[in-house]
Amino acid sequence: MRILKFKEKFSEGIISAKQFDREDIDYILKKAKEMIQIKNSNILQGKILATLFFEPSTRTRLSFESAMYRLGGNVIGFHSGDVSSIKKGESIADTIRTVENYSDCIVMRHNLEGAARMAAKFANVPIINAGSGSGEHPTQALLDLLTITEEVGSLDGFNIGIMGDLKYGRTVHSLSILLSNFDVNIYFISPKELRMRNRDKDFLRQRQVKYKEITKYRLILSVLDVLYMTRIQKERFIDLEEYEKVKDIYVFRKEDLDDTKNEFRLLHPLPRVSEISPKVDSSEKSLYFKQTFYGIPMRKALLAELMSDKS
Amino acid sequence: MRILKFKEKFSEGIISAKQFDREDIDYILKKAKEMIQIKNSNILQGKILATLFFEPSTRTRLSFESAMYRLGGNVIGFHSGDVSSIKKGESIADTIRTVENYSDCIVMRHNLEGAARMAAKFANVPIINAGSGSGEHPTQALLDLLTITEEVGSLDGFNIGIMGDLKYGRTVHSLSILLSNFDVNIYFISPKELRMRNRDKDFLRQRQVKYKEITKYRLILSVLDVLYMTRIQKERFIDLEEYEKVKDIYVFRKEDLDDTKNEFRLLHPLPRVSEISPKVDSSEKSLYFKQTFYGIPMRKALLAELMSDKS
Amino acid sequence: MRILKFKEKFSEGIISAKQFDREDIDYILKKAKEMIQIKNSNILQGKILATLFFEPSTRTRLSFESAMYRLGGNVIGFHSGDVSSIKKGESIADTIRTVENYSDCIVMRHNLEGAARMAAKFANVPIINAGSGSGEHPTQALLDLLTITEEVGSLDGFNIGIMGDLKYGRTVHSLSILLSNFDVNIYFISPKELRMRNRDKDFLRQRQVKYKEITKYRLILSVLDVLYMTRIQKERFIDLEEYEKVKDIYVFRKEDLDDTKNEFRLLHPLPRVSEISPKVDSSEKSLYFKQTFYGIPMRKALLAELMSDKS
Repeated sequence: MRILKFKEKFSEGIISAKQFDREDIDYILKKAKEMIQIKNSNILQGKILATLFFEPSTRTRLSFESAMYRLGGNVIGFHSGDVSSIKKGESIADTIRTVENYSDCIVMRHNLEGAARMAAKFANVPIINAGSGSGEHPTQALLDLLTITEEVGSLDGFNIGIMGDLKYGRTVHSLSILLSNFDVNIYFISPKELRMRNRDKDFLRQRQVKYKEITKYRLILSVLDVLYMTRIQKERFIDLEEYEKVKDIYVFRKEDLDDTKNEFRLLHPLPRVSEISPKVDSSEKSLYFKQTFYGIPMRKALLAELMSDKS
Repeated sequence: MRILKFKEKFSEGIISAKQFDREDIDYILKKAKEMIQIKNSNILQGKILATLFFEPSTRTRLSFESAMYRLGGNVIGFHSGDVSSIKKGESIADTIRTVENYSDCIVMRHNLEGAARMAAKFANVPIINAGSGSGEHPTQALLDLLTITEEVGSLDGFNIGIMGDLKYGRTVHSLSILLSNFDVNIYFISPKELRMRNRDKDFLRQRQVKYKEITKYRLILSVLDVLYMTRIQKERFIDLEEYEKVKDIYVFRKEDLDDTKNEFRLLHPLPRVSEISPKVDSSEKSLYFKQTFYGIPMRKALLAELMSDKS
Repeated sequence: MRILKFKEKFSEGIISAKQFDREDIDYILKKAKEMIQIKNSNILQGKILATLFFEPSTRTRLSFESAMYRLGGNVIGFHSGDVSSIKKGESIADTIRTVENYSDCIVMRHNLEGAARMAAKFANVPIINAGSGSGEHPTQALLDLLTITEEVGSLDGFNIGIMGDLKYGRTVHSLSILLSNFDVNIYFISPKELRMRNRDKDFLRQRQVKYKEITKYRLILSVLDVLYMTRIQKERFIDLEEYEKVKDIYVFRKEDLDDTKNEFRLLHPLPRVSEISPKVDSSEKSLYFKQTFYGIPMRKALLAELMSDKS
């Protein structure tokens, strides 16, 4: 029996995966599963979502906007800091205290790691963190869990590989945090330069998560239930020479599938550049386009929970 | 008793504050006050608003779009000249004669001072001037009046300071023009380089407005009922050295509040850069975020008056 | 009697004018004419249109969005490759396989000629080609036909001049292809450097279209029923010196109208730069702004046919 309702617990919004305990995760997964069945509804009629994207996005922004329209709401926003008052020198705090007067919820992506948290301090409407620098991207991690539970099954007991840019990749930070609520074994696979940061590992150790850090994936492919790949985040590198050294370090090829279990599934938050061969796309073990599908019901569930007046 | 109805008098749209006499102002303030009570309605269902922003904007564009959605309408538009046919060399006249076929009203911001007036000459739908270079920004001035009358009281007899970039600041031009319909004393506070332009002062003199031009605000703070601050408009300076000389000339600090009356209120159209200390934000004398709130009912009132089919 | 319904035949979407036979053209013109009468409807309520514009656009994008709203639907999208994941290196195929999960139909403009066709191969929702490099722009050509048939009359027997940049102008490629279904005489008027490409002429010859290629238009003005002018496509020239040589080669002036028949009509897909004098605008022989008007009913008809669930 839930003591706090979701809307009350998350009245500030969705800032970090750390806000979620197992009960919250199970609840929002259940709500998202219901949303798969409900294509259109009017539950958010009269509500306005603001999407403030200071960094480029296709998937996350369009997915939130589509979800909002499917629930009967409307959307305002901007897709680049260049076309807004940020260009005139406005602070995030001022932008937020303005836009909260125009909307019922704000989805925000920003290049600074603490941006969403700061926004939530100033806003009277819920903030949804749609990516904060190299920090977190909690709604992506939630849709990743929805994809796994719908397409693979219960997570408990799983061997999960998380591979690529674990230093700058915000999706893997949020995913690792959510996974700390499950009984899983995690393999963090990355070059040494792009390992998980100490603060993230400290958190996992405190929560007694079983994880190993390795640099090669071939040897463990056969034991994995899920491999979650990520793009090397070119835009986070200060030194492009550093980027060139590691950018092609992992390329998942069709042959790699032969070494995997029948139940093995490959995920990727997209966009990909060259780290998964297009020949892998048609395999039933590839779930990365299914992830974009599951983004809609998960975001519908989150928007409905945060904004709906119905109790 | 109004002879011309608002919609007929403003059939060309809202181009300049000079279109408004006292009766028009009182009428639209009354309509805006009604809109504060009506969060959502369907009065503009089936109507389309076009927002054509050739210059960056957060507040004005999102505020119009939110207002339009709250009235049941829809919105199309662009947020930068870069992503439209302007890039291919199209004239404003051609853009307007195109977009009027797609919409029921056009909100337009442009870097040229005569742009909105020119657009109105070519359009068969109402044009709303959302900022024309250094010229005017009439809907901002209307929401400023709404804020003052709702939060402070009747304007008549007020001492009003208008401070900052009075040369390039379009909001202060429109505000001064609207104030010429009231019995107020205006203090124009600016460095000599950024004084009100002669043409604006000629207009005020013709209308027998009582105003003084001064360069320092400390001495008169205690007599002011309202101080309206503005940002130094960096983007209007041709010579950035000139900008550097004046940009920090006025910074309103928390200590300044001590010299003001209890009833004193501080307004700013936003965005601010550094001209008001963030420590002033929490004072009940600060109304600049309330202004963003009042932008919605004022724009709802204007959109409803210009587009609604109901008489 | 149609064997295949429009929706079935065009289940992949509208990629090329070559998909249309005379019966399809007559059918969609009839549907578009009906849409002129129906200003607003709810036929696409609950549907979402994605507008993906990798190249700038005013007319085409806003026209599709307005049409979608007039039919009760909603719109998501981006207006520049800069603000989307393309900037991070994503392929068209991946973008499409993502956005198809968020929408019921995708309108796409891209600088590459085969982009729309490629997108259609990967998408499970219909793709509408809103301009593919120098290739095609079929919905523009359809609205051109609607304009001519509504404003001038049946096309059969007409002398039609098509003038300007016939090499890079995608609208004239699609228009020529559609005209191959009618009994018309075409005069292709261009400098030698900008003639129709051989592959386009081969297609017309196969379909036994009567056409002539000439470089001057004065001599034939008096025989034309319709003159379709186009802008020289600056953005397609690799060598800007080449562009400078030809950019002002044709300028239609008011005096030119004196040499034309009473029934003569001048069309242009817009934007124009300097190729038609503004003095021509007020003539009743000028139809280019009417074309923007007819864009809405044509696009409403296309969207309704592709997305409506009603049979």
